[in-house]
Amino acid sequence: MNELASKVLSGDARSVARLITLVENNSDDAVETMKAIHQHTGKAHVIGVTGVMGSGKSTLICEIAREYRKQGKTVGIVGIDPTSPFTGGALLGDRVRMQEFACDPGVFIRSMGTRGTLGGLTGAIFDVIEILDASGKDVILVETVGVGQGEVDIVKMADTTVVVLVPGLGDSIQTIKAGIMEIADIFVVNKADRPGVDRAVAELESMLDLQHTGNEPRTPVVKTIAIRSEGVTDLLKEIEKHKEYLKKHSFLEVRRRKRYEAELVEIIRRKLMSYIFDETKLKGKIDSLIDKISQKELDPYSAAEEVLEKMLR
Amino acid sequence: MNELASKVLSGDARSVARLITLVENNSDDAVETMKAIHQHTGKAHVIGVTGVMGSGKSTLICEIAREYRKQGKTVGIVGIDPTSPFTGGALLGDRVRMQEFACDPGVFIRSMGTRGTLGGLTGAIFDVIEILDASGKDVILVETVGVGQGEVDIVKMADTTVVVLVPGLGDSIQTIKAGIMEIADIFVVNKADRPGVDRAVAELESMLDLQHTGNEPRTPVVKTIAIRSEGVTDLLKEIEKHKEYLKKHSFLEVRRRKRYEAELVEIIRRKLMSYIFDETKLKGKIDSLIDKISQKELDPYSAAEEVLEKMLR
Repeated sequence: MNELASKVLSGDARSVARLITLVENNSDDAVETMKAIHQHTGKAHVIGVTGVMGSGKSTLICEIAREYRKQGKTVGIVGIDPTSPFTGGALLGDRVRMQEFACDPGVFIRSMGTRGTLGGLTGAIFDVIEILDASGKDVILVETVGVGQGEVDIVKMADTTVVVLVPGLGDSIQTIKAGIMEIADIFVVNKADRPGVDRAVAELESMLDLQHTGNEPRTPVVKTIAIRSEGVTDLLKEIEKHKEYLKKHSFLEVRRRKRYEAELVEIIRRKLMSYIFDETKLKGKIDSLIDKISQKELDPYSAAEEVLEKMLR
Repeated sequence: MNELASKVLSGDARSVARLITLVENNSDDAVETMKAIHQHTGKAHVIGVTGVMGSGKSTLICEIAREYRKQGKTVGIVGIDPTSPFTGGALLGDRVRMQEFACDPGVFIRSMGTRGTLGGLTGAIFDVIEILDASGKDVILVETVGVGQGEVDIVKMADTTVVVLVPGLGDSIQTIKAGIMEIADIFVVNKADRPGVDRAVAELESMLDLQHTGNEPRTPVVKTIAIRSEGVTDLLKEIEKHKEYLKKHSFLEVRRRKRYEAELVEIIRRKLMSYIFDETKLKGKIDSLIDKISQKELDPYSAAEEVLEKMLR
């Protein structure tokens, strides 16, 4: 095992940060280390927190982290923010709130922007989860922004998915998107001091009752006022309950398999992209095809077929 | 040639929209049509317009479109909005402003969101440019949001890249990102009625003078107040001048080659992703690898290497 791997496994924050940067940059230097750490993963509980902007999920994540710290658990926080790809990854809205963790070695925070040509929306997120897991974090909180594309990803990586709603925000209850009902393991109605919260919770619960089949526990709804730390212990109880439920019924394994599948596909995707861009392998071929495309002797789709024929077995 | 291709070539808006939807959905049905139309492309002038949010580029694009319409030219407008992947592609800020073109068959407007698993940030944009070009649009305006990732893409697709700055916004002049200087063919200082505009323009011009090598014309700076239609004719003159410059020195061909390369790589990428997800080809293999990954007998990186070995020649 190389030195970086050992240091990551020992929980050294600097090495964790360095390895994350390497995977974000799709560096070959990361590969051996990533290979070495995999067998030390699988212990962390990965909690996805998703919800539209303004739902207060950043505050909520801070509160969850603080609560786990009280229990003596170590926490990793990863923010994926596809809505601000240009900031270089301004994470979790209010950075100030994160300051309290700045001196706590039990908390590791990392924001990820979206990446360039070789990266997808979430790029290296699976690697980051593996790294934080291997580094000994008990809980990993993954924040995704918005409702739509992001939620699909969160489901691929999280053991427990928390969907944050706010009474009165566009997304809530009646207008809730179809996909959301299926992905939420726990609903949080945040900013529960707002007017209309009880009606919102009642509506949500009757919707959940309606869809509930009886084979598994109905998705719980937790009211929180994250900004005042209210309801967060209840939320943690539900998270732990969900975790126990997953374990008891071997569903945890099923979720992990999903994550590994998504991770594998992502690594394959990145490698194929590197392969295409690799000068020595395809560049010459591509150049001559572009000549033909420019001269309208060939169209891009037929050219792609030619490349793939050469590339694939 | 199939019926859809003929209709697209005849400029039928409904067919153009349908073909765009097909390519956005990565549908196999698009392939034959895309192949057929390629030889009818290359006539449109593709203008990329980029700038941070709040720079007023949507308004500016409307104004550019209106000005080209006055000249009797047909216009395609494509908005890529990576900052709102969840809205399903809410384009160009103020949709209201676009209403004036709703009844004008000489203008085709399309917004593109970012796409799911198989799509990159800009996914089918190259196809959309080909389609609009084939449909006979004289000018294609591509709007990208923000500064960073987006600008690299815009440079791959545009013949002429217009960078919109606003005096007093975070991005302007002193804090201008390094990459921006290189990609701009024309700078627009919009909202030129704001205080500090003359100093901003002067600073920008002296920066451009400093970098100017003398082998080519110095990047021009145009002041506009898009909301009052001021400066737009000047901008069009600079765009036309840049177009003539490209043609005269065969640089247009160079830019087109870049676009074709990016398009080809994008098609290859999409095809490879489809290939990975194709059940009949790799799914079984991937399933057994995930078993091993779950049981820590294998790590995801080594598994990816195995798949690629099977996949690639």
